[in-house]
Amino acid sequence: MLVNGRQYRTLWWEDGALKMIDQRLLPCRFRILSVNTLGGVCDAISDMAVRGAPAIGAAAAYGMAIAQLQGLGLKESYERLYNTRPTAYDLKDGLDHYMRAQGEPVEKAVEYANASSERCRMIGVHGAKLMREGLRVLTHCNAGALACVDWGTALSPMRVMKNEGRDLFVWVDETRPRLQGAKLTSWELKQEGIRHSLITDNSAGHLMQKGLVDMVLVGADRIAANGDVANKIGTYSLAVLARENNIPFYVAAPKTTFDRGCRSGGDIIIEERDALEVTHIAGGNRLEMQPITYDGCPARNWAFDITPRKYVRGVLTEEGII
Amino acid sequence: MLVNGRQYRTLWWEDGALKMIDQRLLPCRFRILSVNTLGGVCDAISDMAVRGAPAIGAAAAYGMAIAQLQGLGLKESYERLYNTRPTAYDLKDGLDHYMRAQGEPVEKAVEYANASSERCRMIGVHGAKLMREGLRVLTHCNAGALACVDWGTALSPMRVMKNEGRDLFVWVDETRPRLQGAKLTSWELKQEGIRHSLITDNSAGHLMQKGLVDMVLVGADRIAANGDVANKIGTYSLAVLARENNIPFYVAAPKTTFDRGCRSGGDIIIEERDALEVTHIAGGNRLEMQPITYDGCPARNWAFDITPRKYVRGVLTEEGII
Repeated sequence: MLVNGRQYRTLWWEDGALKMIDQRLLPCRFRILSVNTLGGVCDAISDMAVRGAPAIGAAAAYGMAIAQLQGLGLKESYERLYNTRPTAYDLKDGLDHYMRAQGEPVEKAVEYANASSERCRMIGVHGAKLMREGLRVLTHCNAGALACVDWGTALSPMRVMKNEGRDLFVWVDETRPRLQGAKLTSWELKQEGIRHSLITDNSAGHLMQKGLVDMVLVGADRIAANGDVANKIGTYSLAVLARENNIPFYVAAPKTTFDRGCRSGGDIIIEERDALEVTHIAGGNRLEMQPITYDGCPARNWAFDITPRKYVRGVLTEEGII
Repeated sequence: MLVNGRQYRTLWWEDGALKMIDQRLLPCRFRILSVNTLGGVCDAISDMAVRGAPAIGAAAAYGMAIAQLQGLGLKESYERLYNTRPTAYDLKDGLDHYMRAQGEPVEKAVEYANASSERCRMIGVHGAKLMREGLRVLTHCNAGALACVDWGTALSPMRVMKNEGRDLFVWVDETRPRLQGAKLTSWELKQEGIRHSLITDNSAGHLMQKGLVDMVLVGADRIAANGDVANKIGTYSLAVLARENNIPFYVAAPKTTFDRGCRSGGDIIIEERDALEVTHIAGGNRLEMQPITYDGCPARNWAFDITPRKYVRGVLTEEGII
């Protein structure tokens, strides 16, 4: 991905450590995090310095490499990484790939990361065929390069279109509570030179009703065998609104997000995160949270929801559109 | 309404000035704003120190009283107040009532405010009959006492239930961009001792899908002759989601919100506010805004949306349920 005109990946291996773009500080600060302990990788995943299903999968593979280099037990390290976040299926895919792979520790992780990046690029190649010049796409959360090793899932076809010199416009849901749309997606689109406008999550329905959205395109954290999709909280609402307004709703995800062992969305564990993410907001160039409600206000904070298959027009994968 | 155990109204006349609870600082600071110029009332409305359709209507009546006391032209004062915010129909109702009324300036405004408060109380009396013990209601924005002179619209039946000793539970949408749910509604419910939990706007669909919502109940800024409802942005999404999940969707509003001159929702002007409300967030005990996106990010900020009549099960008014 482009950052101030230079090519970056979301995470990579350099000087004996895992380097990551710290996504908690974007867009106000661009900082590279350097991690060389298993605990450090676990914290980076659970605290969302690195986030997005494919990126979590690659971070987990690098975490295994670090564990193996330090002589830690692979089974225990697998468990620790596996328990950092419950919903993203790529996490398990990255870990399982590492366990099966042959070769040097870092080599195995790099191989996974490279393959992951290539899968995302191919999602873009297939997805872009679906998208006509001047399309107005609405997206949710960040399913961009920052959610992956590179390229993104939902944003990958947009980058491919841009590289082909074709025009499009992106409505960016801000995506409360963590504001990945406001903080990450709009920043990525700006870096890539793709036209966009930020909106509150509340505005998506209004835009669809007014005929200002031609397609909804989101990522996924896990896709069940029956086609139900787990993705960022609010995705289900967008899918219902899209159907109500006859707007095609697409999901973009690599095959590593498909969980064949999971029959339907009802079997997917939905992570519930700290209520503080709802009662407080971090703005500006810092991690420090400001309250937006009275002290001690109860809040619930499910991080994902389930979109039943019937709302999904298709899934863009590295092998084509399903 | 109760504030730390003491009865308050949102706005009232005292010592030759209009007093208002400053809603921009809640819940972190409880401050009474004192205004005694027409410009001061206009600013309080447009800057949302006072907000909510019925409260805006009453503030406008007091604004007219101040203008008349100071010898300003009534017609010009009417125009200035009328142009503060375009969507709330009660604003026009408050102004028109003042123009028609007989008596001393302040007396005319107080009479309007008292009648407005009583209308809201009666919405509660009628609405509470609809609500069974233990009901789980989802509400959006703030349609509470703070949006009115007292009692509220959507929150009025909840207060009546509470006064009758009946239990209920309220899901509070935080309501981006201005966070009236997080900042005002949860605070009001806490003051009144009504059980509640704050959620992001993105979570409402997930809750409905999981069967955790028995009713959606919101306020309104303007209701067209055909029954279409203008209310806070995000209301249309809730209505679509409620219908998809077979959950009754009700609107609570006094007759002063019904605009007979407006045929349908398509005729209602939707206010578009400053993009800064989307790109920045004010947390904590201050008005100062922190950026949540890169500098200069484009954003759109429609303050309201239109819910077509077909999604609305009924409107709770002071005369009963329509």
